[in-house]
Amino acid sequence: NFDNDCDYLWLKSSTPESIYHHGRVGINTDKPEEALSVNGNIRVTGCIEHPSDMRIKTDILPVDSSRQLERVCQMRLYQYRYKDGVMRGANPSNESRHQVGVLAQELRDILPDAVHETNTDVPLSDGGTVSKLLVINKDRILMETVGAVQGLKKIADDVNHRLDSLEKGFSQTHTLKNSKDRFSREGTGET
Amino acid sequence: NFDNDCDYLWLKSSTPESIYHHGRVGINTDKPEEALSVNGNIRVTGCIEHPSDMRIKTDILPVDSSRQLERVCQMRLYQYRYKDGVMRGANPSNESRHQVGVLAQELRDILPDAVHETNTDVPLSDGGTVSKLLVINKDRILMETVGAVQGLKKIADDVNHRLDSLEKGFSQTHTLKNSKDRFSREGTGET
Amino acid sequence: NFDNDCDYLWLKSSTPESIYHHGRVGINTDKPEEALSVNGNIRVTGCIEHPSDMRIKTDILPVDSSRQLERVCQMRLYQYRYKDGVMRGANPSNESRHQVGVLAQELRDILPDAVHETNTDVPLSDGGTVSKLLVINKDRILMETVGAVQGLKKIADDVNHRLDSLEKGFSQTHTLKNSKDRFSREGTGET
Repeated sequence: NFDNDCDYLWLKSSTPESIYHHGRVGINTDKPEEALSVNGNIRVTGCIEHPSDMRIKTDILPVDSSRQLERVCQMRLYQYRYKDGVMRGANPSNESRHQVGVLAQELRDILPDAVHETNTDVPLSDGGTVSKLLVINKDRILMETVGAVQGLKKIADDVNHRLDSLEKGFSQTHTLKNSKDRFSREGTGET
Repeated sequence: NFDNDCDYLWLKSSTPESIYHHGRVGINTDKPEEALSVNGNIRVTGCIEHPSDMRIKTDILPVDSSRQLERVCQMRLYQYRYKDGVMRGANPSNESRHQVGVLAQELRDILPDAVHETNTDVPLSDGGTVSKLLVINKDRILMETVGAVQGLKKIADDVNHRLDSLEKGFSQTHTLKNSKDRFSREGTGET
Repeated sequence: NFDNDCDYLWLKSSTPESIYHHGRVGINTDKPEEALSVNGNIRVTGCIEHPSDMRIKTDILPVDSSRQLERVCQMRLYQYRYKDGVMRGANPSNESRHQVGVLAQELRDILPDAVHETNTDVPLSDGGTVSKLLVINKDRILMETVGAVQGLKKIADDVNHRLDSLEKGFSQTHTLKNSKDRFSREGTGET
């Protein structure tokens, strides 16, 4: 009976006022491909939490920040808007809105683990279809940017070191040269 | 009958264990303004995926990274906490928690497409109301930061180039000066 | 009766096609600890909006960007993968996938307000259990990175200033030295 039907979709949790669903949930899409697929915007008043506990991680290796800086500098940023109709079902203001970001096809060459090929087909208003839509993980770009900043800091430290040497060398030469000049002039004067 | 009622809210999808809703979903808010509006925190064990396929984009133009660096440097960061009561219904720990971020009113002058005026009214504990609450898109700030890092890398490349020239010029002058000094002294000695 | 049961879980909102739940919602987890807890990935076609209106904030104080740069440079980035089984119930591709990020235990020492201790226990495939799982707020890392970029820009401005002085000083000395050399040589010639 449909009590079960109802219960099948959402169940009450043991914690108060909590409900849950096992499987995938779609909002404005009848084919959710991920645990939660939202066609449209998400608004959240609090923060977004990600597990990052070292105890659930393995094969942990440090990342080279100078390589991360290189990769960030290879990313090309564009302004663009979405083609007519591709945001159908979502907040229509998204479609006209000016966007800034990367192109997944280009990012895939630089940061392959930030790009994921999906099974989603997107119909275009010209009658065509985009198949196997590419999606990106912006948090992966954030982590690369953190490393890039660290790479830049190393360059800045090196630059400051070279500047210190030049300034020291220049002021010494200047002083030395002035005293030599004086000596040389005095010597010439004595002749 | 209410089987339909039930079905109206969430429907089973053709993919296994999947359900969907067409329209807006609110959690801890009875007036969801976006496809998904959450009053509180979101925890997600996996990643957040965004479509970024070039095939669904149009009017694609490159962005000037030096302008992005300028804008990032104009953003003012603050620590703050939320006013009493504004996080009502959300995780109460958010209210006392120390936050770090920008102010939407200031960001709007620097990066207008990262700020969105909503129809949400927020009651304050002093009896006042904040109307047309401003929300921000932090991913837009991320993309600006990526460009800013690229702008800094260009400055660093230019700095390194100037340092190379100075170091080369300095070491040549030094060598030249020393040999001239020697010549000059020898010359003076011969007089 | 279970019409109420059904209604208890999700209610229709006054706005069209909108539904809401008061309390916590879990997807692939029967113990949601936050307003929305998702075991798996989230895909969103639009953007993620966060309230950032200055009118709901208080105790607003500016943040020191040079301190933010220091903290970003202290963050250690790693590549890793999740231990077998810890992503159970989520998208299984997450488990094998190569990840890049920080370790919450290390981040806690650098940016304590970006790390949150939960009540979640994660069973490991070796029979052990990770208790009080640590989660992180990546948006907090983004804000720190924005400040770090501003800190780097200040260093770059200072470096450019020092380079200008050196280049000016070097070209003056060079010119001065050349004219002195000429004078000195002419002087020597007259002797």
